[in-house]
Amino acid sequence: MNAIPLARPRIGDLEAGARNAISDVPGVVVGHATLAQGEVQTGATAIRFHGGDHFRDKLAAASVVFNGFGKSVGLVQVDELGQLETPVVLTNTLSVGTAATALARRAVAENPAIGRRTSTVNPVVFECNDGYLNDIQGFHVSEADVLAALDSCTPGFARGAVGAGRGMTAYGFKGGIGTASRVVALDGARFHLGALVLANFGRMPDLVVDGRKLGRERAAADEATPERGSVIVVLATDVPLEHRQLRRVAARAVVGLARTGSFLGHGSGDIALAVSTAEPIRHAERADVVARRVLNEQRIDALFRAAAESTEDAVLDALFSAEDVVGRDGHARAALA
Amino acid sequence: MNAIPLARPRIGDLEAGARNAISDVPGVVVGHATLAQGEVQTGATAIRFHGGDHFRDKLAAASVVFNGFGKSVGLVQVDELGQLETPVVLTNTLSVGTAATALARRAVAENPAIGRRTSTVNPVVFECNDGYLNDIQGFHVSEADVLAALDSCTPGFARGAVGAGRGMTAYGFKGGIGTASRVVALDGARFHLGALVLANFGRMPDLVVDGRKLGRERAAADEATPERGSVIVVLATDVPLEHRQLRRVAARAVVGLARTGSFLGHGSGDIALAVSTAEPIRHAERADVVARRVLNEQRIDALFRAAAESTEDAVLDALFSAEDVVGRDGHARAALA
Amino acid sequence: MNAIPLARPRIGDLEAGARNAISDVPGVVVGHATLAQGEVQTGATAIRFHGGDHFRDKLAAASVVFNGFGKSVGLVQVDELGQLETPVVLTNTLSVGTAATALARRAVAENPAIGRRTSTVNPVVFECNDGYLNDIQGFHVSEADVLAALDSCTPGFARGAVGAGRGMTAYGFKGGIGTASRVVALDGARFHLGALVLANFGRMPDLVVDGRKLGRERAAADEATPERGSVIVVLATDVPLEHRQLRRVAARAVVGLARTGSFLGHGSGDIALAVSTAEPIRHAERADVVARRVLNEQRIDALFRAAAESTEDAVLDALFSAEDVVGRDGHARAALA
Amino acid sequence: MNAIPLARPRIGDLEAGARNAISDVPGVVVGHATLAQGEVQTGATAIRFHGGDHFRDKLAAASVVFNGFGKSVGLVQVDELGQLETPVVLTNTLSVGTAATALARRAVAENPAIGRRTSTVNPVVFECNDGYLNDIQGFHVSEADVLAALDSCTPGFARGAVGAGRGMTAYGFKGGIGTASRVVALDGARFHLGALVLANFGRMPDLVVDGRKLGRERAAADEATPERGSVIVVLATDVPLEHRQLRRVAARAVVGLARTGSFLGHGSGDIALAVSTAEPIRHAERADVVARRVLNEQRIDALFRAAAESTEDAVLDALFSAEDVVGRDGHARAALA
Repeated sequence: MNAIPLARPRIGDLEAGARNAISDVPGVVVGHATLAQGEVQTGATAIRFHGGDHFRDKLAAASVVFNGFGKSVGLVQVDELGQLETPVVLTNTLSVGTAATALARRAVAENPAIGRRTSTVNPVVFECNDGYLNDIQGFHVSEADVLAALDSCTPGFARGAVGAGRGMTAYGFKGGIGTASRVVALDGARFHLGALVLANFGRMPDLVVDGRKLGRERAAADEATPERGSVIVVLATDVPLEHRQLRRVAARAVVGLARTGSFLGHGSGDIALAVSTAEPIRHAERADVVARRVLNEQRIDALFRAAAESTEDAVLDALFSAEDVVGRDGHARAALA
Repeated sequence: MNAIPLARPRIGDLEAGARNAISDVPGVVVGHATLAQGEVQTGATAIRFHGGDHFRDKLAAASVVFNGFGKSVGLVQVDELGQLETPVVLTNTLSVGTAATALARRAVAENPAIGRRTSTVNPVVFECNDGYLNDIQGFHVSEADVLAALDSCTPGFARGAVGAGRGMTAYGFKGGIGTASRVVALDGARFHLGALVLANFGRMPDLVVDGRKLGRERAAADEATPERGSVIVVLATDVPLEHRQLRRVAARAVVGLARTGSFLGHGSGDIALAVSTAEPIRHAERADVVARRVLNEQRIDALFRAAAESTEDAVLDALFSAEDVVGRDGHARAALA
Repeated sequence: MNAIPLARPRIGDLEAGARNAISDVPGVVVGHATLAQGEVQTGATAIRFHGGDHFRDKLAAASVVFNGFGKSVGLVQVDELGQLETPVVLTNTLSVGTAATALARRAVAENPAIGRRTSTVNPVVFECNDGYLNDIQGFHVSEADVLAALDSCTPGFARGAVGAGRGMTAYGFKGGIGTASRVVALDGARFHLGALVLANFGRMPDLVVDGRKLGRERAAADEATPERGSVIVVLATDVPLEHRQLRRVAARAVVGLARTGSFLGHGSGDIALAVSTAEPIRHAERADVVARRVLNEQRIDALFRAAAESTEDAVLDALFSAEDVVGRDGHARAALA
Repeated sequence: MNAIPLARPRIGDLEAGARNAISDVPGVVVGHATLAQGEVQTGATAIRFHGGDHFRDKLAAASVVFNGFGKSVGLVQVDELGQLETPVVLTNTLSVGTAATALARRAVAENPAIGRRTSTVNPVVFECNDGYLNDIQGFHVSEADVLAALDSCTPGFARGAVGAGRGMTAYGFKGGIGTASRVVALDGARFHLGALVLANFGRMPDLVVDGRKLGRERAAADEATPERGSVIVVLATDVPLEHRQLRRVAARAVVGLARTGSFLGHGSGDIALAVSTAEPIRHAERADVVARRVLNEQRIDALFRAAAESTEDAVLDALFSAEDVVGRDGHARAALA
């Protein structure tokens, strides 16, 4: 590997939030459970969107599937009802069932009416395949790990090779968890849009860092490996957006992905979820007609730009925050920086 | 309840297959694991579409979501790749995580390259909420139950209050598993399209049996209960259909549902999956371009009609095959017949 | 044809509006231009959703395509922006270009900023093929005819073989324009949902009238003809619904179609559009964030049922309102009644 | 404007076809009708995908809408049937009705059974808004212009400010028609994928040319204008792809757009259509089941990369091929080069 000095570039034109993290959106916190021992290099990452119970106070949400080679859980209901009613969990591909069960069990514990006197609960889980570094066939993530991630959420969460990101690879380098945020001004007030990515995608020769074809420089020295990855993008904002607007915002994550070098490879499960924290939807709503605030659609370009920039920035954050990891069968991924 | 004599009517114009079951499609078999003790009235039902390994020999498939208040697993990838690569499992809502894990574990056991030297596997699981009769909060379905369902598949499978259908309710009566099939003639040969439903939907006053508003007759005597159900329709055919054609065929299941009285209620997860067994897609395919047979689109009305009729017939089969069940807290559902 | 006396049945459980017409929704009016001379049996039908300019005061809208063998214009933008910004025009298949141009020209005349200082305009036009009775290859509908339909809108509009419905056929009988409405109570107030259909679909043996297989009775005497039709369903309501909710409501039109005997035939362009008149969206909106009312989703079943019932009722209205028509090459369609 | 010397860069890793044009796909030809007089700066561009009648020999096709602020015609049927049955026409926004009518009239003239003894025809028309340079409110494109474009198709067609591209603007510079192609090797044979774009999108400060933020350099001197554009991407290939695969290929056009600086702005109608010329679908097919070749999905990355690269390259081609144009009210757009 050559010795080009690498500083993480500033991405885009918009102002970043104070943390340049998804937690710049008030109330959004993230937690990890990291399993990092020998062949086991995996984990779970949880995102909570407010401090309350997500089943009782649901949030407007929408997903977009850029490439559906993926095993996410929960999107059918998210897109029918336009609502998220659990925290979001990220983990490895073969652990989505366990994570979904953990989320369901927790929701039932906190809401004993679920499935009896009221509807059931829709857990939302995303995944990437960390089978290169991690013994994924061992199904090592437990329900307890998922609950630990849920219970350790904080605004000042770690990035890089942690939680669900522990065993992930991006552009041939060590990937994992990255985050970023942008400020959006509306009606004279400051709002935020933040991104969190689980980056496990891309071939090294394709890596582009703020326009520079860094991957080609590095790939001469490193071995190019075939892509078998995925990338999950979770966007949160305190701007009041309805489901359809959130779907449009989520659709701009692909711009950020493309600018880091992705062409949405066949084997890559590339999915974005966008959530608005502005106007919780009460499960116990009594009124037949309710009042909501919603963005004037003609102002939505600011959100689109923020989604594109924060996604690109979050992918680079995952790469620049990662550390070297050695895992299964001595497989190793080096940090980019 | 009054004493109107009830014979199961003949539905539609097309000829039924020999069994009038999804297993009239050559190679399709179904198995159940039934848990029926006191408060535990639930189970799992598995559908296999051929006698081989579904990961190595995938099948063309497509889904349609009529109402997405449901927690199915695996549809994102089915609709991206147009392929099914595991058997299908049906179970109760809170057990989808367990069922997905069981399918994944089984696939890994049979294909050790999964997640390491080749892609991961996409389990497909559907669900309905059996919480009225069953202690759904107990998460009683185990991975072993799911494997037992997979390992007991047979063409001559039971219908009614069995497997995933054990705790289900349809139109206020005991619901569960139903099936039917229709014959389709193409190029002088006989093909089949079959349906299997997990029927857990509909309010009693809405029930229509072959045009007769039976629900209104019965609901006068019985208590009308609010809907909190779902219905899953799995269609299989040996006609060679590509993904898009299968999506169109799956879209006709709604015709059969509507004719039994459904209006696709808000709380009902109403989903159809269609699978063609005609042309397996080899995971290990070496050729870059492969030969496929596909239906001349102008002949597709026969499949549409068969999908509509066999879905309607299968819902009635679930109702007419069911037995009375008493479960959680003494809750009971009476058989229609 | 035999002599069974035919009275139009009462459909469903809900109360109909005063006119049992889409114009029971306050502000909704309909107009026709009918061309009925010899080989020319065609026309245009226009629906206006309020008394103002639709470009300046847009309406929340959503469409669902049940079977896309159709040439509608404008749905891409309706479903991206969730908005309707012109009246809706129905006409014959080969006249959609002319109708779209007429709507665009009218919008430009009334809003000179269009395409220059502000965005362009998105005309919405639906169609069915009236080529059996009408000389469709003659492209007889002119821009003037479309404007005449727009300018003759009234709450007390004609039904049956008028406007776009002039040359249409449904279930082998004379089809055309039908309408119906249902009352929905919310928060103690009365709202309406109304349907207008352009019925040009179905084979005679399939016709079902409120559960009675009337088509089979009649088809013995009449010649069964192959289907090459379509059906357009336009739903309007004064209940405040956001785009996603309107999409869900539009999705229930299929229930009404199925109950009249349709199985969504391959050659039939079956499309529904739902529009809420409750909360106009101002083109000149200055605020970045706006207040909106929206239905509590848990009350949406009332709308679903109203959509299913009013669609079924509107199809029957088209059949029962029609008169005999003789057109191209002596082709004839007899009224059902 | 400063004097940075500008050479058109080589985009991506794949080999370009001999013409680096969509016409490298055998049989694909393009024609223009250009209206360039004073306030009238507009036109029509036609793409034919083989030398025969497109209604009698249809082609597999699929579209993807990245942002649906657009008035395209015909996509509902393309995506239901997976087929294209007319040449594709591009024109200005207010002329889509005229273009659709012209295509329909031409199809009827060549196939007198249309709408009478066989189905109607589904014209496919795309558009962008050229209202800055062109008197779009004048509806200047006539049916004769559209037919002239159809009748002048040739492999060696002009690019830049011609045909539908005459009045278009991209990234603040003169936009219009651009094209590119890439070679794909399969089973030892050479295939092509080509792109043609109608580029009318992007704000100047956002322009990126092969990683270089050229727009920021130029925008310091030039006035930044608000976006009100669109971009249409038509992809053609002689690789045998089914509808679903074509949809996946079309979905990669967004990668190319993003790399030139687009973030899929709210007001931009960004749509891709992909067409395979490999296996025409006969309107008069007699067999019930037909044989088709189709790409082994595991080889599709080559197509994805080709789609991304040729789209990016085609956008740059539009910019580099354009000449200065002065139009309505003295509005002017300068060429980039």
